[in-house]
Amino acid sequence: MLISNWAWPREDPRMVSLGLSGVFAASLTPLDGDLEPDLATLLRHGRWLLDTGCDGLGILGTTGEANSLPVDARLAVIEATSAALPPERLLIGTGSCALGDAIRLTRAALLGGAVHALVLPPFYYKPLSDDGVFRFFAALIDAVADKRLRLFLYNFPQLTGYAFSQGLVARLLDRYDAVIAGMKDSSGQWDGMRDMTRAFPALRIFAGSEQFLLPILKEGGAGCISATANLTSAWCQTVFTAWRAGDTTAAEEAQRRLTPVRQAMQAVPSIPALKGIMARLTGRPGWAAVLPPFAPAEPADTAALVRSLNALGFVAPAARAA
Amino acid sequence: MLISNWAWPREDPRMVSLGLSGVFAASLTPLDGDLEPDLATLLRHGRWLLDTGCDGLGILGTTGEANSLPVDARLAVIEATSAALPPERLLIGTGSCALGDAIRLTRAALLGGAVHALVLPPFYYKPLSDDGVFRFFAALIDAVADKRLRLFLYNFPQLTGYAFSQGLVARLLDRYDAVIAGMKDSSGQWDGMRDMTRAFPALRIFAGSEQFLLPILKEGGAGCISATANLTSAWCQTVFTAWRAGDTTAAEEAQRRLTPVRQAMQAVPSIPALKGIMARLTGRPGWAAVLPPFAPAEPADTAALVRSLNALGFVAPAARAA
Repeated sequence: MLISNWAWPREDPRMVSLGLSGVFAASLTPLDGDLEPDLATLLRHGRWLLDTGCDGLGILGTTGEANSLPVDARLAVIEATSAALPPERLLIGTGSCALGDAIRLTRAALLGGAVHALVLPPFYYKPLSDDGVFRFFAALIDAVADKRLRLFLYNFPQLTGYAFSQGLVARLLDRYDAVIAGMKDSSGQWDGMRDMTRAFPALRIFAGSEQFLLPILKEGGAGCISATANLTSAWCQTVFTAWRAGDTTAAEEAQRRLTPVRQAMQAVPSIPALKGIMARLTGRPGWAAVLPPFAPAEPADTAALVRSLNALGFVAPAARAA
Repeated sequence: MLISNWAWPREDPRMVSLGLSGVFAASLTPLDGDLEPDLATLLRHGRWLLDTGCDGLGILGTTGEANSLPVDARLAVIEATSAALPPERLLIGTGSCALGDAIRLTRAALLGGAVHALVLPPFYYKPLSDDGVFRFFAALIDAVADKRLRLFLYNFPQLTGYAFSQGLVARLLDRYDAVIAGMKDSSGQWDGMRDMTRAFPALRIFAGSEQFLLPILKEGGAGCISATANLTSAWCQTVFTAWRAGDTTAAEEAQRRLTPVRQAMQAVPSIPALKGIMARLTGRPGWAAVLPPFAPAEPADTAALVRSLNALGFVAPAARAA
């Protein structure tokens, strides 16, 4: 791994800024009988999401069980998705607590034409300092050394033990300018994501839950990237479309219907629950497979969740093809 | 990755139990100018440690920056150390939050004849349950499917968010018997490691700090596996040798001298500090290199630490060859 002292080029910094915005599902990663990614089903699922309300897809995030997948499997997912789905609509998780693996994964995304990378801070050693996180991101960006890179900071303090500070974001922007393109904030802490959105209007800041979709749009945020949008993308899109059309009343009404659906789903372990529902929707029991530490949802629990969603008037889009 | 339903063979379960005990350094991993493992220096360091008081070596643990190294680099370290150092004296860190990488690393250790593997729980998703950790270890052991494996549970709740419970250890022992060989407890919580040692006398339980060396030996524990034993192994060995000879008074006296040395070293970020001291001892500045999120120790800080250790009467062994 070469950690160069290569100076970041300043000219034409926004030449490939593609302006991600709107509704993104943090895609599940379907698995085959050997617990390897089932690439064909993943691509069908991605197309279904793009057809049913998603503006784009988060690939290999927390919901995608990326950190439970071996590096080789993640590389295979990156190659397959960037080749078969529109790469400009993908945000690919390329973080790792190992710098060298993060470099390799980020380079693979860029090789596939997917320039938007969602990167966790290195999440093993704790406590993490701003200086330590800066060193990691600087070493990653310098080593990848590709002006096209658009990096999204992945804020998930419940899982990493570290919350991005405004000071660190400012330091990264000062050195890397448009390469620091945005943030996914999965903290669940509204005040923090609101303040970050206000402080950095040039960043594309996505809430990690559709519960905050309209609130963050009102603050100038970019949208949401959400686990539960694997099912709710059409309802999320109703909010986003109304908001973009300037119809605040309709957007607020759609958000009022959406929020309880999200809350019902986050009351259960979401990855097994979402995969369990996909197994029902598609009629493919294999969809329910998850990697340790998770266990597949019990069918009775999935049925109960579906009943509670139906009681809220929520029905997922038909998914025979997914 | 094949997750088989293969039944663990019960016959002759302790055929390769080698009974690790005594003083283990959690070896540092020296890096080259590209931040790749410097294998030649690592092997020299390992031999120096075995020559200066270590009964064995922890390779690729937390101190070894294993989770900051790419999987390929870890495989190279496993191959080199198991070939060039006595594999029966090695305890190799093969954990990963990705089951498939943990399987690959554990198989590599066994291929090199190193049967003792130190394995973290999957450390990304939180909170972790006993059930989730059980599923991970069961899937790992079933997939590796090698009767020689001797697995040490790596308890480090400050970094993983999970503390092994006696209930989980009992479940693992019930299914996998002698394959569950021991534990390294880096929690720093004496009461917990004492109770675990009393509850499972057949396990080899190592304290993660030489501060607890004599206390855990008195409880029937196996010894210590310690970051700071990269420097203190000779002093640790004085404790262990006296204890083994039945000379409790000499062991207690040696422990009383040792504990303040450990405490002085753990007051600073230990991996950069230890590597900084190795750079001084060996006259090789490259020894100070660390992976992000760490930064190399400032030479002035290293000098101050050395002075405080000297004030305690502590002088590290000569290390021209390391």
